[in-house]
Amino acid sequence: MSHFAPVELRHASRLINHGPTVLVTSSDGGRANVMAAAWSMPVEFTPPRIAVVIDKHTYTRELVMRSGHFGLCLPGARLVDLTHAVGSETGRSIDKFARHGLRSRPGPNSGVPLLEDGCAAWLECRLLPEPHTQDAYDTCFAEVLAAAADARIFSAGHWTLRPDNAELHTIHHLGGGNFVTPSGVVQAVPV
Amino acid sequence: MSHFAPVELRHASRLINHGPTVLVTSSDGGRANVMAAAWSMPVEFTPPRIAVVIDKHTYTRELVMRSGHFGLCLPGARLVDLTHAVGSETGRSIDKFARHGLRSRPGPNSGVPLLEDGCAAWLECRLLPEPHTQDAYDTCFAEVLAAAADARIFSAGHWTLRPDNAELHTIHHLGGGNFVTPSGVVQAVPV
Repeated sequence: MSHFAPVELRHASRLINHGPTVLVTSSDGGRANVMAAAWSMPVEFTPPRIAVVIDKHTYTRELVMRSGHFGLCLPGARLVDLTHAVGSETGRSIDKFARHGLRSRPGPNSGVPLLEDGCAAWLECRLLPEPHTQDAYDTCFAEVLAAAADARIFSAGHWTLRPDNAELHTIHHLGGGNFVTPSGVVQAVPV
Repeated sequence: MSHFAPVELRHASRLINHGPTVLVTSSDGGRANVMAAAWSMPVEFTPPRIAVVIDKHTYTRELVMRSGHFGLCLPGARLVDLTHAVGSETGRSIDKFARHGLRSRPGPNSGVPLLEDGCAAWLECRLLPEPHTQDAYDTCFAEVLAAAADARIFSAGHWTLRPDNAELHTIHHLGGGNFVTPSGVVQAVPV
């Protein structure tokens, strides 16, 4: 049973505001792929827009350029090994969904494959073509068409990080296959 | 006494790879400013390049456009309240350095003010002018000219997060003034 529920678009930026590593999903012409990306960020609240670095030599980049869509899925802590694996393989020669037994659901607007099992959230994105920045910086801008999150960890626009939902905590790549998870929520007070 | 030591440029991306909130420092013509930014990311390892969202209505954006340089300073957990404060004030009407008693040192290449007290690291950046993406997405690309980190938490290209250096742990903004810090390093294993 899926615990995913829609996230209002005005709250979409909060899903990646704290810098989690994401899985970029894509598909075109019957082929699908998934790769890991540590480099993404929101760039606008309304309309919800994001930027993500997708190397021009990757198969994902090829599929995204052809289809014009991609998904950003936030792996939970249970998926650390999977995340590192799909960041090290190329989808040109293998079907990563089959290899890792990944189930996906089609994005409501684009049909792009989205992951829910073990993930905290996803964002369905439409590429905003920017040939220069795609070429010079491998940076792809996109508009968020829809978003959803596991209601056990994100609801009403807020993350709730507790020991009992630790498997769904986002993961953040320090480099070299080392990941950290967020903890210890602190509320800033006026100074 | 400062514990800061230079970070090799090939390791600069690791300072922000895991998505910390940063303080953007800037100066021009005798005026200096500092603001908080949750939206930044590396975009290239070599040469080291980053992207950061700086709203076009901010005083920081004005100073950065004039001087062509800025700093990204990583506040440690002790600076949560300061970070939230400088993200809510405008430097047009107040001198935030004076108001908050912030000491800075000049960047070795540009003279841009850089914060070390209570910070984990800094990156001295040179704007790569991209008028279209600056205008359309408030996204500023830059090359990292120099970087340094507090050796008690980052050295030889690696973060070391321990209870005894908790005050220097990076902070990650969930939204609404709520910050988390990273913990529980997990090393991915091949699947």
